[in-house]
Amino acid sequence: MRALRWHGAQDLRLEQIPIPRPGSQQVRIAVQYCGICGSDLHEYESGPHAIPVGTAHAVSGRSAPLTLGHEFCGTVVELGSEVTGLQVGDRVAVEPEYRCSHCAYCGSGAYNLCADMGFAGLMGDGGMAEFAVVPSYMLHRLPDVVTLEQAAVLEPAAVALHALHRSQLAEGASCAIFGLGPIGLLLVTLAKLQGAGTIIAVDVSPQRLHMAKQAGASHLVDAKGLTPRELRHTIASATAGLGVDTSFEAAGLQATFEGALRALRKGGNMVMVGLMSEARLDAFDAVNRELSLVASVGYRDVYPELIGRIAAGAFGPSAIITRTVPLEQAVSNGFAALVQDRSQIKILVSPSAGCNNQH
Amino acid sequence: MRALRWHGAQDLRLEQIPIPRPGSQQVRIAVQYCGICGSDLHEYESGPHAIPVGTAHAVSGRSAPLTLGHEFCGTVVELGSEVTGLQVGDRVAVEPEYRCSHCAYCGSGAYNLCADMGFAGLMGDGGMAEFAVVPSYMLHRLPDVVTLEQAAVLEPAAVALHALHRSQLAEGASCAIFGLGPIGLLLVTLAKLQGAGTIIAVDVSPQRLHMAKQAGASHLVDAKGLTPRELRHTIASATAGLGVDTSFEAAGLQATFEGALRALRKGGNMVMVGLMSEARLDAFDAVNRELSLVASVGYRDVYPELIGRIAAGAFGPSAIITRTVPLEQAVSNGFAALVQDRSQIKILVSPSAGCNNQH
Repeated sequence: MRALRWHGAQDLRLEQIPIPRPGSQQVRIAVQYCGICGSDLHEYESGPHAIPVGTAHAVSGRSAPLTLGHEFCGTVVELGSEVTGLQVGDRVAVEPEYRCSHCAYCGSGAYNLCADMGFAGLMGDGGMAEFAVVPSYMLHRLPDVVTLEQAAVLEPAAVALHALHRSQLAEGASCAIFGLGPIGLLLVTLAKLQGAGTIIAVDVSPQRLHMAKQAGASHLVDAKGLTPRELRHTIASATAGLGVDTSFEAAGLQATFEGALRALRKGGNMVMVGLMSEARLDAFDAVNRELSLVASVGYRDVYPELIGRIAAGAFGPSAIITRTVPLEQAVSNGFAALVQDRSQIKILVSPSAGCNNQH
Repeated sequence: MRALRWHGAQDLRLEQIPIPRPGSQQVRIAVQYCGICGSDLHEYESGPHAIPVGTAHAVSGRSAPLTLGHEFCGTVVELGSEVTGLQVGDRVAVEPEYRCSHCAYCGSGAYNLCADMGFAGLMGDGGMAEFAVVPSYMLHRLPDVVTLEQAAVLEPAAVALHALHRSQLAEGASCAIFGLGPIGLLLVTLAKLQGAGTIIAVDVSPQRLHMAKQAGASHLVDAKGLTPRELRHTIASATAGLGVDTSFEAAGLQATFEGALRALRKGGNMVMVGLMSEARLDAFDAVNRELSLVASVGYRDVYPELIGRIAAGAFGPSAIITRTVPLEQAVSNGFAALVQDRSQIKILVSPSAGCNNQH
């Protein structure tokens, strides 16, 4: 079968490899769609970051070269001997977090904090291939009304919903979302769905701000050219002079980290979703204004809720999909396009389809 | 009357000033004890930091020079015309946070976040004087069984209890306390009282570690000479290899900030009580281990609980008092001693008493 494999930074290869066979508790699926995530881009541009090289990952047993892609869905084609509750032909979404099942975190249900945390498609083989073999616990069967295109965006939606849960955002509360990539836009959508009173979307791209408006943002702030003070003032003006109850940092930049903290009212909390290395924190301000910084990683127990909401017609996460490309074009029209073109939000790779260029 | 007034860094003057008279909603008290706080030291060594110079504070109406000291208690000697619920002769503790009473924070009860937040003794005249005039809302009448010496330590105990409330530390949970000054030692005492299962006290002073043992710490860690990795390992060893549920940063240093974060298990939270300017945060680690950083400033609604607990004999906060000095010796045997001698924890100034050198 064909698979897009990571060999090193700037070295993704479309290769012909043997079709993998499922172990007793695994399932093989024919992959319909696999989204390109910011972390995939990161591995492509300057990896390895999360990809194991030399030493095998404790749960997957794999190391580079491996098949990229953790935002995927498809159809069950082969079941391991001990798998129950699934049938060949089932349409499924993949929740790609590995679980060791025996650490204290897995034991308490916080499997996103598993001692050997990892993702299929980063720490093991993922979805940018005709077929993928994954542990059966990763699979969620889709109701008929949920399309595979919607299912392809469940993974970033899960990241956003878990971040929203971590925020404890109350109905009617105000929030500001810094960074309108896939996660930021999905946060706008989900915060709206949760009944946030004021949703301030902040980015430097007019196209992304436009998408945030369509997703339900009540205020749009183009931060380009604004001083930190002006940005803070603009947000305060939208919140009776106080600042927002909650902010989300979804870009992973020092500027958005600072902006998201400054945007808060006293006693407010910032959720850190974006990945960055070292951040400079104004600890004096944080203590004096009694702020909280709450990190969010991955997700747990949110796929059923998301699938239920999509099935009920409450939201359509596929609004963030800007392009779908076949596996052969994954690098040229996928990875490279995301690096160069900020109007691209979510590009799906379709190992089983021809090019369907939406934009 | 005699008052110790801040005129500038390294410039505290014992002066003769007129006895202040209470306004209609104020009370004059004869000060029995006034503790020296780390923030007083900070103003003494390198101020102004919080002390208003030139521009009057919005609530107190005062600016430098002013009488230092916010950890004080005494006896009511004069009541403003509109004050109810207090009588001349009442023994009272002062909760020194100003409240504007009309901002959104005061309106919601979060008066420690008042838009014009400040403390009597920093942003207005405080307790290092024979008499102090304060708003009546600051006063808590003491039951007969609570001594004024105990009442003198209520303010730092309030800081510690509010931080503990912010931590949401559960019964049986584990915690590590970095920095065993007055706040850190009181955190040990209060965490023990709250039923924490494991209390790890961390400092570089053997005397302070000894006091933490007496206060109820289950583990003592002398961080002197330990590498960050060794420190992390030592704490992990005490917590089944995981790290603590909650850590408290009560020193305001980059090293303790980092240590308190590294000490956490995945999903753990660190409470920031210490004051520092800029902190360098390993944001990648914070997100990947889903940590929370929760700041704590001042206190609200904790004095009655503390006074009740002291009255019930549950704890004696005066264990942290290492010396009591008269007003005339406040600088020489108080401020200067705290700067030079790390075995000194809490020094009380007694405007109405002779020298009572306990150590």
